[in-house]
Amino acid sequence: MHIDLNRQSRSSLPQQISDTLEQRIASGLLPPGSRLPSVRGLALSLKVSQVTVSKAYAALAARGLIHCSHGKGCYVAAGESGQETAGDWQDRYDDYLPRAQLWHNFKDSAVAYPFHLAAIHSSLLPLREIGSTMASLVLEQPEVMAAYGNFQGDHELREVMAGHLLRRSIRVQPEELMMTSGAQQGIDLVARTFVGPGDTVYLEAPSYTGAIDVFAGRGAEMVFVPMDRDGMRVDLLTRLCDRRPPKLIYTIPSYQNPSGVTMSLSRRQRLLELARSYRCLIVEDDPFSDLYFQSPPPPAIKSMDAAGHVIYIKSFSKVLAPGCRMACVAADGNILSRLIAAKSSSDLGSPLLTQRAMLPFISGKYDAYAGKLRRQLSQRLEKATALLERHAPPGVSWITPQGGLSLWLELPASVNINRLQKLAEEKGLSFLPGDVCYAGGIPSRHIRLCYSQMTEQEQEQGMLLFLGLLQAYLQEEAAAPSGIALKL
Amino acid sequence: MHIDLNRQSRSSLPQQISDTLEQRIASGLLPPGSRLPSVRGLALSLKVSQVTVSKAYAALAARGLIHCSHGKGCYVAAGESGQETAGDWQDRYDDYLPRAQLWHNFKDSAVAYPFHLAAIHSSLLPLREIGSTMASLVLEQPEVMAAYGNFQGDHELREVMAGHLLRRSIRVQPEELMMTSGAQQGIDLVARTFVGPGDTVYLEAPSYTGAIDVFAGRGAEMVFVPMDRDGMRVDLLTRLCDRRPPKLIYTIPSYQNPSGVTMSLSRRQRLLELARSYRCLIVEDDPFSDLYFQSPPPPAIKSMDAAGHVIYIKSFSKVLAPGCRMACVAADGNILSRLIAAKSSSDLGSPLLTQRAMLPFISGKYDAYAGKLRRQLSQRLEKATALLERHAPPGVSWITPQGGLSLWLELPASVNINRLQKLAEEKGLSFLPGDVCYAGGIPSRHIRLCYSQMTEQEQEQGMLLFLGLLQAYLQEEAAAPSGIALKL
Repeated sequence: MHIDLNRQSRSSLPQQISDTLEQRIASGLLPPGSRLPSVRGLALSLKVSQVTVSKAYAALAARGLIHCSHGKGCYVAAGESGQETAGDWQDRYDDYLPRAQLWHNFKDSAVAYPFHLAAIHSSLLPLREIGSTMASLVLEQPEVMAAYGNFQGDHELREVMAGHLLRRSIRVQPEELMMTSGAQQGIDLVARTFVGPGDTVYLEAPSYTGAIDVFAGRGAEMVFVPMDRDGMRVDLLTRLCDRRPPKLIYTIPSYQNPSGVTMSLSRRQRLLELARSYRCLIVEDDPFSDLYFQSPPPPAIKSMDAAGHVIYIKSFSKVLAPGCRMACVAADGNILSRLIAAKSSSDLGSPLLTQRAMLPFISGKYDAYAGKLRRQLSQRLEKATALLERHAPPGVSWITPQGGLSLWLELPASVNINRLQKLAEEKGLSFLPGDVCYAGGIPSRHIRLCYSQMTEQEQEQGMLLFLGLLQAYLQEEAAAPSGIALKL
Repeated sequence: MHIDLNRQSRSSLPQQISDTLEQRIASGLLPPGSRLPSVRGLALSLKVSQVTVSKAYAALAARGLIHCSHGKGCYVAAGESGQETAGDWQDRYDDYLPRAQLWHNFKDSAVAYPFHLAAIHSSLLPLREIGSTMASLVLEQPEVMAAYGNFQGDHELREVMAGHLLRRSIRVQPEELMMTSGAQQGIDLVARTFVGPGDTVYLEAPSYTGAIDVFAGRGAEMVFVPMDRDGMRVDLLTRLCDRRPPKLIYTIPSYQNPSGVTMSLSRRQRLLELARSYRCLIVEDDPFSDLYFQSPPPPAIKSMDAAGHVIYIKSFSKVLAPGCRMACVAADGNILSRLIAAKSSSDLGSPLLTQRAMLPFISGKYDAYAGKLRRQLSQRLEKATALLERHAPPGVSWITPQGGLSLWLELPASVNINRLQKLAEEKGLSFLPGDVCYAGGIPSRHIRLCYSQMTEQEQEQGMLLFLGLLQAYLQEEAAAPSGIALKL
């Protein structure tokens, strides 16, 4: 088992080891019953003392996450539904995956009410238009399916994208854009190119779990910066950077995922100044800025970026056709050329067909479509919040977002969110527990519910089901003597 | 600049530093005129002495790759067409890309005769069939474009794939397969999951440059194992493993890329035994086993794998529709589950649409198509070798491959392959220089020419052009006084 240890970290070595093991256990990478390496073996491979490893194991055992016994070694606790499995050579074959919460939370979406998924229901997407372009392409120019696209992406589409971004005050040349298979790949390419063990990455607290997975995979030291209603607390970030200079700052400034908060213009400006003074990169992940309900968010940080400090990632998957996996990355100079090099080794470039199929829609019909989509999403949000206001038990709170796809609910401190999640799944309903939007075992009282990925009727049924479930959970809890497991 | 140093390596530290810098320069990641870090700065960041860095720089300067001057620092030599550029903060922003030969060699394929590209011309591919399935799908079930596929790949396609592999003696369940965006992504996922700094990866000498890029990017210690006519010398590999246990062995056993050599059955068996005894993984990359010209190659190593030591990667992109970016990875147990976790953070899964579009062809028409394709490729190979036999200058040699897409030519020792490449590119013709199929500056007298990616007429014209160029080069060279640059 490979664990990136950082001797300059504020966390002790035993703490770093137990944090990593906890994240592996929490994401199912170390399944119940799997055997941990011996204290001696792990100490040897990590080049630390056996005492350090023993302390880490003792901390995990004290929290019931693993069981150790003399002579037999340590095993991941079987949990409620787990089985003890026989470890074999594969279990002992080292890997470099410290966590995988995307995989853990999204691998099986076969529930009736998938509130965990931040997606837009197919009936709201322009699939017929994109599909008809695609059909003409494959029938009339089938050779488009034979081409390895170029690594950077189709030139014509990049021209259209440059125009699209210009209308949003972002001035970039087609040569300064790269197409990727979704924003997730964009984030991943940045991380594999520029982030390595011990590099400090700052993120909003909470942040997108898929970005956290990626930075964790690179051995980054992640620091989560608190937010208020104006977004990331750049004043706090400035002080943190004094102690630990940033390699990279990851932000979702508009309708942040998962909190829904939008960063103010002055914070955006100060963040960019900070990046300039530290000569570091900002990754501006922007899936939602077109999905505003009242007025557009402040201009993108990229629109103010004169010296190439911002890598801007614009997802088109979410808003147009998730299955087409398309995003656009804007960067310049040798930051961009290194990202293109990384793209080449990662998959030889994204398919030309999907790029060409989306081109006419983005160039001609996008703006009108986005206007209509905003109205539909806004109505859905209104319905969801109306249900919350009417049926949410006392102690549940939320801030109504001004755009985006999801609600970030704070639950009463007494709620055991993991248990609530299991109960919900039994009823065919899923949500995203807030703690996966942090790293390092920070407990969260929040959950994320998306209001756009079902039909309106399903959404209403699902919200009522969830709120009823939450109510019953809290009543049962209030009635139950403490310490006794709830059987709802 | 980040450089993975291995103090257990047989190479000295200055050698490791200069090797990495050389690879970065050779792949254009450090462009002509860019400034290298100061000796003091690099020594500090790599935690080595300044003497070590100075030795590395001196070695590069002695070979003309960089220029150093007192007070001004060291710069990458401007080369023949290069310009000195002003370094700025971006040039000094650290990355983790030690090389990028795929990017360097394939980013611009706009030549008239792209012999460097191992691809099949669109007229030979079943694009109309796949296109018509795709058109029906997007018109009749447009919601297929809205779905994030599952991370592992479409279940129905995995069932078809399991049947396809079974007909090739590979017994796997649909649950033991994962779909990836081409074989390149399959290799990349294996590397990011299981390979890290200092891990030993064994490869054939020469090997696929895209795999070398990926393993280099993970900081692996790559060891290239010589081949003979029966493939990788497993006897030599066994002795090498005694000194340096393998983390992973990467092989292309059938019609190896680039050499065309096929590994014998007994070597395949011995390789698997070796992997078992070292409890390591074999990555069996198999794009070409269906493209045999006389008789099929020996069974895949995966077909003999009882204990999950083989990760089998089958590309369908090359043979069906490169732009659809599709490959299938067979592995089991918690080797596979970790690969699926890595796939999730890398791009959230491959598009469902392309998977569904290729499904009917693979399940029903593939075998008949492959038979026809084999005959067409075999005829093309015959034509190419006939031209070689008639027109190749003395000293050029090759082994006629029994399958696959390319010829591996050995040129006379006197040929400066980089110069020949520049001359060829001026005439609109490209080939792959052999040295990119190794790592660490191993000089090669080989080049790879593919015979399947143009029309037959273009192929013939291109071969004649190339052979004429080579002839003229050798004549000029014979006439020129040594030491004077050729101006062909």
